[in-house]
Amino acid sequence: MFDKIRNVLLGKSLKTEELKSEKFNVFWGLPILSSDAISSVAYAGEEILWILVPAIGIMAFKNMLYVALLIVLLLFILMFSYRQTIDSYPKGGGSYIVAKDNIGVTPGLIAGSALCIDYVLTVAVSVSAGAGAITSAIPELLHYKLIICLIIVVIMTIGNLRGLKDSAKLFGIPTYLFIISMIVMIVVGIVRVKVFGYVPKPLEVLPDFSGQITFFVFLKAFAGGCTAVTGVEAVSDGIPNFEEPSQKNAKKVLLILGCIAFVLFAGISYLATMYQAVPSLDRTVVSQIALQVFGNGIMFYVIQATTALILIMAANTSYADFPLLLSIISKDGYAPRQLCKRGKRLSFSNGILFLAVAASILLIHFKGENHYLLPLYAVGVFISFTLSQFGMFMRFVRGKQGNWKHKAFISGFGAVITCITAIVIGVTKFVHGAWIVCLLIPILVFIMMRIKKHYNKVADSLRLPLDIKPKKMIYGANRNYIIVPIDTLNKSFLKALNYARSLTEDIIIFHVSVDEESTDKLKKRWEEYNVGIPLTIKRSPYRSLLGPLVKFIESEEFVMGPNDTITVVMPQFVVKKWWHHALHNQTSLFVKSALLNRRNIALTTIPYIIDE
Amino acid sequence: MFDKIRNVLLGKSLKTEELKSEKFNVFWGLPILSSDAISSVAYAGEEILWILVPAIGIMAFKNMLYVALLIVLLLFILMFSYRQTIDSYPKGGGSYIVAKDNIGVTPGLIAGSALCIDYVLTVAVSVSAGAGAITSAIPELLHYKLIICLIIVVIMTIGNLRGLKDSAKLFGIPTYLFIISMIVMIVVGIVRVKVFGYVPKPLEVLPDFSGQITFFVFLKAFAGGCTAVTGVEAVSDGIPNFEEPSQKNAKKVLLILGCIAFVLFAGISYLATMYQAVPSLDRTVVSQIALQVFGNGIMFYVIQATTALILIMAANTSYADFPLLLSIISKDGYAPRQLCKRGKRLSFSNGILFLAVAASILLIHFKGENHYLLPLYAVGVFISFTLSQFGMFMRFVRGKQGNWKHKAFISGFGAVITCITAIVIGVTKFVHGAWIVCLLIPILVFIMMRIKKHYNKVADSLRLPLDIKPKKMIYGANRNYIIVPIDTLNKSFLKALNYARSLTEDIIIFHVSVDEESTDKLKKRWEEYNVGIPLTIKRSPYRSLLGPLVKFIESEEFVMGPNDTITVVMPQFVVKKWWHHALHNQTSLFVKSALLNRRNIALTTIPYIIDE
Repeated sequence: MFDKIRNVLLGKSLKTEELKSEKFNVFWGLPILSSDAISSVAYAGEEILWILVPAIGIMAFKNMLYVALLIVLLLFILMFSYRQTIDSYPKGGGSYIVAKDNIGVTPGLIAGSALCIDYVLTVAVSVSAGAGAITSAIPELLHYKLIICLIIVVIMTIGNLRGLKDSAKLFGIPTYLFIISMIVMIVVGIVRVKVFGYVPKPLEVLPDFSGQITFFVFLKAFAGGCTAVTGVEAVSDGIPNFEEPSQKNAKKVLLILGCIAFVLFAGISYLATMYQAVPSLDRTVVSQIALQVFGNGIMFYVIQATTALILIMAANTSYADFPLLLSIISKDGYAPRQLCKRGKRLSFSNGILFLAVAASILLIHFKGENHYLLPLYAVGVFISFTLSQFGMFMRFVRGKQGNWKHKAFISGFGAVITCITAIVIGVTKFVHGAWIVCLLIPILVFIMMRIKKHYNKVADSLRLPLDIKPKKMIYGANRNYIIVPIDTLNKSFLKALNYARSLTEDIIIFHVSVDEESTDKLKKRWEEYNVGIPLTIKRSPYRSLLGPLVKFIESEEFVMGPNDTITVVMPQFVVKKWWHHALHNQTSLFVKSALLNRRNIALTTIPYIIDE
Repeated sequence: MFDKIRNVLLGKSLKTEELKSEKFNVFWGLPILSSDAISSVAYAGEEILWILVPAIGIMAFKNMLYVALLIVLLLFILMFSYRQTIDSYPKGGGSYIVAKDNIGVTPGLIAGSALCIDYVLTVAVSVSAGAGAITSAIPELLHYKLIICLIIVVIMTIGNLRGLKDSAKLFGIPTYLFIISMIVMIVVGIVRVKVFGYVPKPLEVLPDFSGQITFFVFLKAFAGGCTAVTGVEAVSDGIPNFEEPSQKNAKKVLLILGCIAFVLFAGISYLATMYQAVPSLDRTVVSQIALQVFGNGIMFYVIQATTALILIMAANTSYADFPLLLSIISKDGYAPRQLCKRGKRLSFSNGILFLAVAASILLIHFKGENHYLLPLYAVGVFISFTLSQFGMFMRFVRGKQGNWKHKAFISGFGAVITCITAIVIGVTKFVHGAWIVCLLIPILVFIMMRIKKHYNKVADSLRLPLDIKPKKMIYGANRNYIIVPIDTLNKSFLKALNYARSLTEDIIIFHVSVDEESTDKLKKRWEEYNVGIPLTIKRSPYRSLLGPLVKFIESEEFVMGPNDTITVVMPQFVVKKWWHHALHNQTSLFVKSALLNRRNIALTTIPYIIDE
C-alpha cells in the first residue's frame, strides 16, 4: 500500500547503473544550478534602493549604478575564481572541500556548516518570496501563505526525490522564461525611452536631498545588493551532476551564468534609475518598472508570474546541491552515514528530506514571511566564499605551478573582497538575525566533530588487525547454554523450545513467578508434558520479569566457561494489523533491550505468526 | 537517572505481598470513594435553579424543594439497590460486571464503556470546576486556568501512582473539611433566620410569575439536579480496595454517604429557598448563601476553598476506580492486557496514566472550561445505572431466593427510574454534547469486541492440546543453517561468525554487493583471513540490502529439509549515548523486521558494545 503510493509519486526504483543517464548537460545544468543566482537579481537592486533612498533621496539612483557596478565586478571576480576551482576540483569543489584541503579541517567544517545553513535558508527565503508574489497577485490567498509555502516545499521535495533529470525538466523551464522576459523588459524599456521618447512617470517623486552619500551608507547598500551574488557556489559544488566532460560543462555554465546575471542586474539597475522606481512594501521595484514599460497588460502579468516562479525554483538549487554536500561531509564521517546513501530513485533521499523538514520548520516558525528570514541570509554564503577563495589562494601559493601568481592574485583578491563583504553583512544585519547564523555555525561544527569522534571510536573498536588469524573451532570444547523463558506452556513457547533443543542440550527453562496460582498451574502442566528438562523458577516480588532473569544470569548458580555462550530464545508474536501490537505486552522487546548491554549474550527471536 | 526521579516522585517499589496494607478502612474509604458524590451536591442545586428560575421565577424556590426531594428519593433507591449489589458481588460489582453477568456481554460492554467515558469526564469536569473556583477567587490567575487544570491533573496522577493508601491520606482530608464546613453553614444559616430573626437580602429580587410549572420543565430540572447522584457506583466498584470485611465496610460507607449527601443536598436546597439564591455566572449559589450566612469574613473563604478542593478531589474517585474497572475489563480480554498489571507501587499505573492523558486531552480541547464539558456528563452514568439495576433485577427474578420479590422490586424500580432519567438527560442535553457520548459508546463497544476477537484468535493459535507429547529430538537428524551477513570484515562481524561457528557447521556468509569496489576489497580480505567458508555474494542493483537476502532464502539455491531451521545472526552496535543511535544505519533492525514475517526463521542478535 505504502509502496504503491511511493511508486506513483516517485516513479519506479532505478538501478545504480542508471546513475549516468540521470546527469545533465549544459542546457539543463544552467537553469538547475543557476536559478538561485539569477533569481536574486529580482530583489538585489531593490535591496540597494531600500538603503539608499531613505538616506540620500533622489541621489540614490545615480549612486545605485556605482554600487551595482561594484557588485557586478565582485560577481566576475567570483566567477573567475570559481572557474579556477572547477579546474582544480573535478569531483565537485564546494567551499567545504576547498577549505578542508587547503586550510584545515576546522575551516572546512565552518564553510560546510555555513553552506548547509544557507542552503536551508535559500529554500525558506525563496519559497516564501515566491509565495509572497503569488499572494500579492491573488490577495484572496493571503491567509493561506504559509500553507502555500508548505505545499511548494512538498511538491519540490517529491520532484527531487524522483531524481535529478526529471527535476531538471520540471524546474528548468521557468528559469529560461524569467531570463527571456527580463531581457524583453530591459530592451523594450530602453527602446521606449530612448527611441520613442517616453517620459517615465514615477509612482512617487522623491525630494531632492542636498546630502552627500557617506561611506557607511555606501557599504550598507553594497552589502544589501550582495544577495545578487549568492548561488555562484552551486555550480562548482555540482560538477559531478554534469555530463562528461563535466568540468568543461560546469565552466561553460558558470560563464553563461555570469553573463546573464551581469546583463539582467545591470539592465534592471539601469531601468530602475531611468524609471525612478522607489522601493515600497506594496510593489516590488521590478513590478513598478514592468508596469511602466508594458502598462497593466498581459506582459505585466507574465513578468510577475515568471518572477514568482523563478523565486520558487531558486529553492531547487538547494535541492540539487544540499544533499550532495551532505553526502560529501557524511562520507568524511562528519555527518550521519545515512546521508550518503542513494534512494530508490538514485537521489540522496535522506538529504532531500532533511532539507525539506528544516526549511519547513523555518517557514512555520517565521510564518512564511521572507521579511523575517532575510537578515539571516547571505552571511553564511560570504563566510564560505571567503574560506573557499582563501583556500584556493593557499593552494596556488603552495603549489607554485604555471602562472600561479596571477591565479593566486585572483583568488586572494576575491577572498579579501568577500571577507570584507561578510564582515559588512554580519555587522549591519547582526541584531536583525545574523546572530542566529553566527551562533549556529560553531554549534554545527561542534556536532560534526563529535560525530567524527564517535565514528572514529567505532572504527577503532571494529578494526581487525591484518595479522589476526581465525579461531580454531573444536566442537564440544565450549558449551552453548540456551535460556528459554516460559510464562505459560503454549505453542509459541514450544516453537522456541524446539528450536533450542535442535541446537544444544544445555537448555534452561526459566520461569518468573509473579503469582503462586499460575506458577502452580504451569508446574503441573510442565510435569504432564514431560520434556525431561526441569523448570528453573524464580520469584519476583516486585512483579518485574526482567530483574530475576538478569540476576540469574549474573548469579553463581550459573557456571560458565570463558568460551561458552548464552543465548536467550524468545518467541515474538507477529500480528497482521498495526493496532494489534498495542494489545501485547512486548515483554520480549524489553528483555532484549535490557540484555543488549551484556557482552557474552546472544538474543534470538522466534517469530510466531498469528493468522487472522 | 530516570529511575531516580521516579523513586523520588513515586516512592520505592512495593512487593506484591504489601498489597493488603495498601487497602483502606471505612474512615479513609468514605472520602476517597465518595468525594465525587458529595462534591456534586455543591452544584446540583444550582443546576435545578438554572432551569426553574428562567421558567417560573420566584415559584422556583418552592418547586426546587419538590425536585430535591425526588432526587433524594432517587439517591436512596440507588443506595439500597447498590447495597444489594455489594451483597451479591463481594469482589466489586460495577455495572460492567453486573450487566455482563445477568443480561449479556453487549449490555456489559455498553455499561463498561459508558462508565469509562464518565470517569474521564468526572476528572475533566471536576478539575475544571475546581480550577474555576480558584480563578474566581484569584482573578489574576484567570489566564492560566488551563495550565492550573493540567498541573492539578499531574499532581493527582503522581499521587495515585504512589499508591492507594498514600493517596487516601493526601486526598481524603478535603472531603471531611467540606462536609464539616457545609454542615456548619447549614446549621448557622437556619439558626440565624429561625432563632435570631435575620431577614435574608437576596442579590436579585425575582419577578412574581403567575405561570404554573409544566411537566417538561419539572423533568428538565430533575435531569439537571441528577448530577447529585453521580458517584454512587464508585463504592460498589471499589469493594476490593476495602479492608476486610470489605463488603461490610463498603455497605457502611454507602450508607454514610447516602446520609451525608441527603443532609447536605436537602440542607443546601432549603437554604437556597430560604435565602433566595439566584443562579448567576459570577457567583455560585453556594457562595451566595455563604456570603449571606457568614458575611465577607474568614468563613466565607473557608467555604469557597473547601468547595474548590472537594471539586478537585472528586476527580480522585475516578483515579481510584477507573483503573480498577479497566483492569477487570482487561482481564476479561476486552481491553489491552497491559491495563491489568500493577505498577511498581502496586497501583494500576497504565490505567492511571491513560486516565490522566484522556482527561488532559479533554481539558485542552475544551480549554479548561467545565461549562463546555457539562453537557457530556451524566448520560453515561445513568445508562450504566440502568443496566446495572436491570441486571440485579434479572438476577433476583432468576434466582428466586429469600425475599427476592422485595429485592427485585427495589432494583427494578431503580432501573425504571434511572432509565427514565437517562432518556430525559439524553434528550435535553443531546445537541449540547450528549451526542458525543451516544456516539462514543458504540465505538468503544465495537473496539472492545474487536480486541476480544483478537485475543481469542491468539489464544486459539497458541493453545496446546493436552494430549500432545513432546517431539523426539535426534541430534544430527535436522540441520541448522546459519546465515551471517557481512558488509566489511571487522570485529563485530567476527563475533557473530564465531557464535555461529560454535553452533553449527552449516554457515553461509552472505554479502550484498552495492558497489564493485568495496566488494572486491572484501573478497581480498576474506581470502587472506581464510576461515574456510566461501562468501556468498549477491548483487543489488537497487541498493537494497534486504531484497537479495530474502530472495536468497526463498530461492531454490537454498535447499532445506522440513525440520531444518535457518538462523540469521547479525551483530548490533550497542552505543552509550542516545544520539549515537542516529549515527548508525540500523540495518539489522530493518532486516529483522522484514524477516519476522517468515515462519521458518530465527533471528539472533549479537550485541557489540562500543566503549567510549
